[in-house]
This record gives sequence, C-alpha cells and structure tokens, in this order.
Amino acid sequence: MPEFQQVAIVGVGLIGGSIGLAALKRKVAAQVIGIGRSEEKLARAKRIGCITEGTTDWQAGIRGADLVCICSPVESIVSWVEKMVPFCQPGTVITDAGSTKQTIVETLHLSESVRGRKDVYFVGSHPMAGSDKTGSENATADLFQKRVTIVTPAPESDRTAVAKVGEFWKSLGSHVVEMSPHQHDLSVASTSHLPHVIASLLAASTPESLLPLTSSGWADTTRVAAGDVELWRQILTTNRGHVLQALGNFEKLLAAFRSSLESGRDEQWIKLLEQGKHHRDIVGS
Amino acid sequence: MPEFQQVAIVGVGLIGGSIGLAALKRKVAAQVIGIGRSEEKLARAKRIGCITEGTTDWQAGIRGADLVCICSPVESIVSWVEKMVPFCQPGTVITDAGSTKQTIVETLHLSESVRGRKDVYFVGSHPMAGSDKTGSENATADLFQKRVTIVTPAPESDRTAVAKVGEFWKSLGSHVVEMSPHQHDLSVASTSHLPHVIASLLAASTPESLLPLTSSGWADTTRVAAGDVELWRQILTTNRGHVLQALGNFEKLLAAFRSSLESGRDEQWIKLLEQGKHHRDIVGS
Repeated sequence: MPEFQQVAIVGVGLIGGSIGLAALKRKVAAQVIGIGRSEEKLARAKRIGCITEGTTDWQAGIRGADLVCICSPVESIVSWVEKMVPFCQPGTVITDAGSTKQTIVETLHLSESVRGRKDVYFVGSHPMAGSDKTGSENATADLFQKRVTIVTPAPESDRTAVAKVGEFWKSLGSHVVEMSPHQHDLSVASTSHLPHVIASLLAASTPESLLPLTSSGWADTTRVAAGDVELWRQILTTNRGHVLQALGNFEKLLAAFRSSLESGRDEQWIKLLEQGKHHRDIVGS
Repeated sequence: MPEFQQVAIVGVGLIGGSIGLAALKRKVAAQVIGIGRSEEKLARAKRIGCITEGTTDWQAGIRGADLVCICSPVESIVSWVEKMVPFCQPGTVITDAGSTKQTIVETLHLSESVRGRKDVYFVGSHPMAGSDKTGSENATADLFQKRVTIVTPAPESDRTAVAKVGEFWKSLGSHVVEMSPHQHDLSVASTSHLPHVIASLLAASTPESLLPLTSSGWADTTRVAAGDVELWRQILTTNRGHVLQALGNFEKLLAAFRSSLESGRDEQWIKLLEQGKHHRDIVGS
C-alpha cells in the first residue's frame, strides 16, 4: 500500500513534475494532485504521468492531502503556506522544494496563520537536483535518485512531521540529510548558488564573436547559466550574505591563481589545479 | 576508396583513439597505424578498433603514411615533428591535436629539420572536443562530430597541405575553421582554457566537508576540473599571456557582480545573469 494516500503538488514544472512522476512510479503515493494556474500545463503534466489529477482550484487540490509539496519560486512559498494552512485537514504535512530555507522557515515560524493551527505542520526541504530545463515535459522519475535532499526543521518542529518529510524524499530515491535552515543556506551558497553565479559570469565574459569556438568543456562549465534568471534572482536575494561569503572564498583562490600565473610561480597555481581535481574526483560523475 | 591510404597517430589516448575510431568507421583511412610507448595500450587500442596496427617503433610507424597526426601533450609536439620529418616519405602531411598553437608553429617554422624538407608539410590543428576522461577505452567515433576544429596555417604553409588537413577533420565530422596560430591561442584562452581554470578554482574553493552536498549544477560546472593536471600545466604555460587576458575579462565581471550584490544594486548583477543566459542559449546543448 502506498505510504501516502494523496500528495498535492503546487507548481508542476520540472521539479514538481519529477516529484509526481517518481511518487507514482515508485508507488509512494496513490494519488498526486497537481495545483497550478494553467489548465493546459496541468493537462500536459497529467498526460505525461506526473499527476493523477490537475486543478486550478488550490482549496480543492489540498482537500484530503496528507502531504503538500510546494514547488513554486522561493519568494512565493511563504504566501502559499500561509494561505493554505487554514484549509488543510488535520494532520497535513506541508513541505517545499525551495533553494533557500532560512527566510522561509523564520517567516513561517512567526506567521499568525501557521501558529493558529497546531495540527498542520510545515517542514522545509530542498532536493539538490535540478536542470537548466524547465516544465513537466522535462521531468524525470529518477531526478532525485542518489541525490541529497536537505530537510531543515526548526527547533520547535513536530518530529513526526519531520520524519514523514524525510521518508517521502527517501522513497523518491534521495539521500536525506537534516540540518538547520541557517546551516542549509550557508552550505548551498557554496555547493549550488556559487556554481550558478560563476557559470553565468563565465558565459557572460565570453565574447559573443567567439561563441562558435566554444569547446565541450565550455558547454559543461556554463550549462546552468541557461537557468531561469528570475528564479535565480529570488534565490540569490534570499541568500545574499552567504553567497557573498562563498564568493569571497572563490575570489581568494582566483587572486592567488592570477598572481602566481602572472609571476611564474607555477608550483602555486598547479597546486590549485590539483586541489580542484582532488575535490572533483571525490564527488565523481 | 578512402581518402587516406595510411594515417599514423602518435599517442593513442582519448583524442588519438577517437581520431582512429572515426577515421576507420567513416572509411576516411584504409589503415591507421598507432604509435606509442606501451605495447599493452596499443594492443588495447587495436582491440577496440581505434587502429589497424600498433607499433612502438615510430620510424616504422610513419613509413608509408600520407598523414601523421600527433596527439601527444603539447610540450612534446615540436620534438616529435622535428625528429620525424627527416624520415617521412615525400608528400607526407603532419598535423597535431594540441590545445595551443603559436609556440608550436613558430618553433617549427624556425626548425632546421623542418626547413630541410620542402616535400614534407606541417600544419597545426586543434579539435575543440575532449573529455575529462583519458585513454583509448574512452574513445568515441563521434567525438569530433559537429565540433569545431581549428586549423592554423602559417603564412608560408603549403595550401594543398592545409586543404588536406582541413579535409581530414571534415571527414571526421568536424566544422573546420582556419585562423592564424596567434588568433587561435587568443580565442581558445576564452573558450577553453579559462573555463578549465574557473572550473578548477570553483572545485578547489568548495570546502571538502560540503562535497557530499554538491548539486548536479556543481557537478556540471566543475566537470573539466577532473582533467589531467600535467596536460593542463603544459597548456596554460604555453598560453600564459592570453589566459591572463581572458581571466581579466572574467575578473571585471566578477568584481561588478560582487559590488552590485553587496550594495543591493540588484538590476546590475541581474543583467550579468541575463547576459550569461543569452550567451549560453546561443551555444545551446
């Protein structure tokens, strides 16, 4: 019997669609209700098998859900949770897939709406998987497989709800790691947000006339720069301080690289290449 | 009938192996002779179908070759050409697959050995394709397909030989672009060497304790950092000035990004993300 009777997904794009696809394929959920604004996109997601039903009426969509997963852009997650909580059935667990956590968790902790319901639970999460592509048509059932999902409870979070959210991601194939929202934002600034910034700047710095001469290495290194700019604006503004900190680490190495390449102290920059290879080899393909 | 009766390849690794595989599969060459130091590696390359014969005796290997392609690390290319030229049959064309061209072409232009033979021709080339993997076991016949290969004649180069080298790469599926060795080195500093440096520094700057939390975006952005450090040492030292210049372009954008993110002039760094996405979208997957 599936672990969840009904999972509701807000925003059936690449991430939401992949969650639905994986949950249905792995029989983690009996039903997956897609909530969105476009009938057409919901119909497409249903046709692909990401959801069993789609609705533009969110109140109807969350009725009867034991788990709600909000896969909308980070800046809209708080308002989704706030407006949904009063309409949830007792026992509903709400989670999200947003790339930053501290602002979301802290804001909801202080929210009147959320504090008003002791029988509805929000636990933030962040699957460390994605793509520069968008839309349920690019969803894949194995997107979360062998990828880390970070679950970020607050100190006061209901432990049963935290466990339920962790179980959900594990059922989709993820390795689940638990950490505080602050620790999450600090960590992903280095492992996800900085790579996006660097890839974008590298692509931006390549003269347009030379783009026909780019190598497969350029293509790999800049791949994520094709991602949606508005989504990334929201991520970077909600994690500004930590991104600047991660950028600082990178700038230090860059300055050391430049000065040693410039002055012929070759052993110094070669050490940096070796350090990079060492880290890359640890992660593997 | 194949265009080339006998192609000799020096260094049957990933690049040399892929050249052989493609030349045989596409019937561009009747025979491909692999020249290397390890009998075992040559036997493996033959088993895989990268070469028709392998030999550790280079003089025997180039005897009867109408085209010789040197796929050894950049620092050894000049000495390979110099020692081979006196032993080539009249009409032999020699090319290479090295990532830098100016030093190689200029040094060979002044070389006594090369100047002594008016009937043997060297024309440099650089296929803009590769992998962080090495060895003929990772060779693929479509490595050069739809990828650019830059052919870099000197002003005094024999045009028939230049055309022959261009035809060879076209036959392997490449788009061929001709430019001077200097223009080549300047261009690839931006499109290939800088991405490698940036990917390495990004991987190096990620704290080791956070590596288990890296995203698929990190994996893409740092992929090339796994490449062989000694090969990249040779590439970067033979193209130092141009790499520093490309690094300078990147540093300017990085400084603009940092200062605008730090001071909340968000529209400025958002423009940089948009510029990066624009360039990335032009190149496509």
